[in-house]
Amino acid sequence: MFTSDIREQEILDYFKAILGVERVLTDRESLQQAGSDHTEDLVFLPEIVLQAQTTEEVSRILAYCNEHRLVITPRGAGTGLSGGCLPVQGSIVLDMRRMNQILEIDSENFQVTVEPGVITEVLQNAVQEHGLFYPVDPASKGSCFIGGNVAENSGGARALKYGVVKDYVLNLEIVLPDGSVMWTGANTLKNATGYNLTQLIVGSEGTLAVITKIVLKLLPQPTKDLLILVPFYSAEEACRAVNKVFLAGYDPSALEFMERDAILAAQKFIDDYSIPVPEEIQAHLLIEVNGNEETYLMQEIEGIVQVLEQFNTGEVLFADNQNDKDKLWRLRRVTGEAAKGSSVYKEEDTVVPRAKLPQLLAKVKALGKEYGFDSICYGHAGDGNLHVNIVKNNMPEDAWHNELPKAIRELFLYTKSLGGTLSGEHGIGYVQKQYMDIAFSAVALELMRQIKKVFDPNDILNPGKILPG
Amino acid sequence: MFTSDIREQEILDYFKAILGVERVLTDRESLQQAGSDHTEDLVFLPEIVLQAQTTEEVSRILAYCNEHRLVITPRGAGTGLSGGCLPVQGSIVLDMRRMNQILEIDSENFQVTVEPGVITEVLQNAVQEHGLFYPVDPASKGSCFIGGNVAENSGGARALKYGVVKDYVLNLEIVLPDGSVMWTGANTLKNATGYNLTQLIVGSEGTLAVITKIVLKLLPQPTKDLLILVPFYSAEEACRAVNKVFLAGYDPSALEFMERDAILAAQKFIDDYSIPVPEEIQAHLLIEVNGNEETYLMQEIEGIVQVLEQFNTGEVLFADNQNDKDKLWRLRRVTGEAAKGSSVYKEEDTVVPRAKLPQLLAKVKALGKEYGFDSICYGHAGDGNLHVNIVKNNMPEDAWHNELPKAIRELFLYTKSLGGTLSGEHGIGYVQKQYMDIAFSAVALELMRQIKKVFDPNDILNPGKILPG
Repeated sequence: MFTSDIREQEILDYFKAILGVERVLTDRESLQQAGSDHTEDLVFLPEIVLQAQTTEEVSRILAYCNEHRLVITPRGAGTGLSGGCLPVQGSIVLDMRRMNQILEIDSENFQVTVEPGVITEVLQNAVQEHGLFYPVDPASKGSCFIGGNVAENSGGARALKYGVVKDYVLNLEIVLPDGSVMWTGANTLKNATGYNLTQLIVGSEGTLAVITKIVLKLLPQPTKDLLILVPFYSAEEACRAVNKVFLAGYDPSALEFMERDAILAAQKFIDDYSIPVPEEIQAHLLIEVNGNEETYLMQEIEGIVQVLEQFNTGEVLFADNQNDKDKLWRLRRVTGEAAKGSSVYKEEDTVVPRAKLPQLLAKVKALGKEYGFDSICYGHAGDGNLHVNIVKNNMPEDAWHNELPKAIRELFLYTKSLGGTLSGEHGIGYVQKQYMDIAFSAVALELMRQIKKVFDPNDILNPGKILPG
Repeated sequence: MFTSDIREQEILDYFKAILGVERVLTDRESLQQAGSDHTEDLVFLPEIVLQAQTTEEVSRILAYCNEHRLVITPRGAGTGLSGGCLPVQGSIVLDMRRMNQILEIDSENFQVTVEPGVITEVLQNAVQEHGLFYPVDPASKGSCFIGGNVAENSGGARALKYGVVKDYVLNLEIVLPDGSVMWTGANTLKNATGYNLTQLIVGSEGTLAVITKIVLKLLPQPTKDLLILVPFYSAEEACRAVNKVFLAGYDPSALEFMERDAILAAQKFIDDYSIPVPEEIQAHLLIEVNGNEETYLMQEIEGIVQVLEQFNTGEVLFADNQNDKDKLWRLRRVTGEAAKGSSVYKEEDTVVPRAKLPQLLAKVKALGKEYGFDSICYGHAGDGNLHVNIVKNNMPEDAWHNELPKAIRELFLYTKSLGGTLSGEHGIGYVQKQYMDIAFSAVALELMRQIKKVFDPNDILNPGKILPG
């Protein structure tokens, strides 16, 4: 199976000599686990899983793979939604879970240095104890790794006010496919020193280098927040209302959209918490403001409600204690998982300039009618980032495999025509690469191919991702 | 002179056919102007200056230069401080001043699309009329071009709260050295679609491509601000005080440091406005807060003053009307120019994690004593970004040319040891490239070289910049 001519046993022996036997895995369960993530129902079994614990180990592993032309795919927690960590050519998976140390919390300079295998929420809680705030909160923050977040340039609800992962990464220690170890930048808030290698690695989905240390900028922890849930009688109107909040000058820390079916699926999924959703309600906006001055926040949230009430809204739900807030956020966070239900699905991560959101939503629904698919839409409306969950339900196999890709292509072409693109925060990975010709010209794609070649001339590191064909 | 074997007259004829005679300049004054910028007293005369007006023209010019191996250097307003636009190999300068249209202000989506030759302050004023805010304000904003700002990843005083240019660039139209025209990204707030070519171009100092259109994110214009000037009896103490403001949880929109000599030079330079600077005062902090709620801002500024008064400070000056604010800001903005005085100088743009600023300043002064140079320090203290103006004054020629570079190398090595780097916002350009081995490992520099080669295989576009040797 290995593209190399040396025998599998030799390969295993080499890795066991570096890592010890217990971190070189070939049992069925480990391979199974390393062969899938949260993307659709895809599975690609590797032949070996390696669990590195140090930069030095990663370096030796990659150097060996490079020398022997062995394909290797780095892997975080496997919560990705575009198949970025799937070992699509089998071979070796480099599992980063054991590089899970928070190396330094620098509360003087508001920075943290971490290894890639730290769970995002664990990191958030650790810095919070120092009064510091790492704001990027993907829905999967309770299980995803910060390294995967950097690799995919993840977002989440608070990206609206605080930006995405790329806005917090100051410096990265990386290992190149040939085993070289290097830092990409400096631990400074500003940096105009050479090409921005840091931002080239962020979002490169483990195809250019393996990330072994991450220096993140932090903020002071805001002390107060308010949360409301606003029902709308029309989903498109909810989308139209979003932009008015910003035009009125408000700066919410989250502004999330959930279609009727999304919130119903979420409620069914968690089962221990429900809010009344009257029959006529077609969508909700979940809106958070945060800061340090309660009076000011109250003014802000009331101002936002006034803006929204110019539309046809139902009764606004104020979450006035932490318990209620947590429950509402949980409802929002499980939506992705819940929307997939028990059916086969495909999840798109379309993003457009914010004011174009109503048009995007209308197009999704029109395509659904035309091609005969159901969709559940939700996402980060304030960023113009709409998750479109296409569920198979009763769509015939043939249409699912042959017609649906045409519908998705039409959707992406429309997204592009609105000034948008394929993915706001999930990445391209394996499942969206066939659409990259919509987002980029042939010239741009060729540049990307050449950049990949600069970093990984032998194409051993996570091949078959991002770039089409 | 031209590295090509075709004759100069043929070259001129070709360009005149594309641009018309009036935009192909060879007169002495034009060449002189295109041969220098604001970096030291450096001059490199080109042989031809071309003033392109459209993307199509830029494309044809570059394609021709690439075919005939003619070196070409793009140029904005020439306000750069690292020699990024200097035509160090002579040949052709591509002057972007005529591509100066604001193409679209999208006030629904808080975005603007501009050509590179728009003066930054003109852009700021234009979007302000729509209630929008482009916050990045280099000291030279009244004359620098937005294209140059993008090429150098410029900062300025408000970078502290709002970030630098890279945080506002959503999408770029660029022309590659072979004449290909492409867009780097999408007009969206979030984008996880392929390698981040946009951020690779930002800060690449015109060495990878020529920027022809820029899509910037905008914010709502804050309506109020407050400004204070706080004198300190010790410059190092002023630097130490900076960090305490942030540790106390405040979020100023600017926090600027000026050494005694910096403010004195600035006052002398503008001549029509002065503030009393008692003899014992060694430094000032200029601090701005902004937002929409005056009461809240007053609380904030009072809180900041309380923090600072734990140090040994003089009487705080409140600028309580727009006129006084403008004067104080003007004083700060001319500091760079003023500090250079009538002497030969070198300007460094060191940046460190914020809390390390006192150590950095102490090192500058210690090196000055050791090597016998005078320095005037000022800059964006809140970002840890210290401008070090080394003035020649009475330093002997020999020491200036042979000893000073050793001192600068020592300074950068120390900066690096603090987690910092060579340049916070001025770029590397021509004058700092000899120190790049301090900021980056040989492996990282080789990656940058290879990336340059991917974009510009014939090394025709602004060669001899950023990368050493």
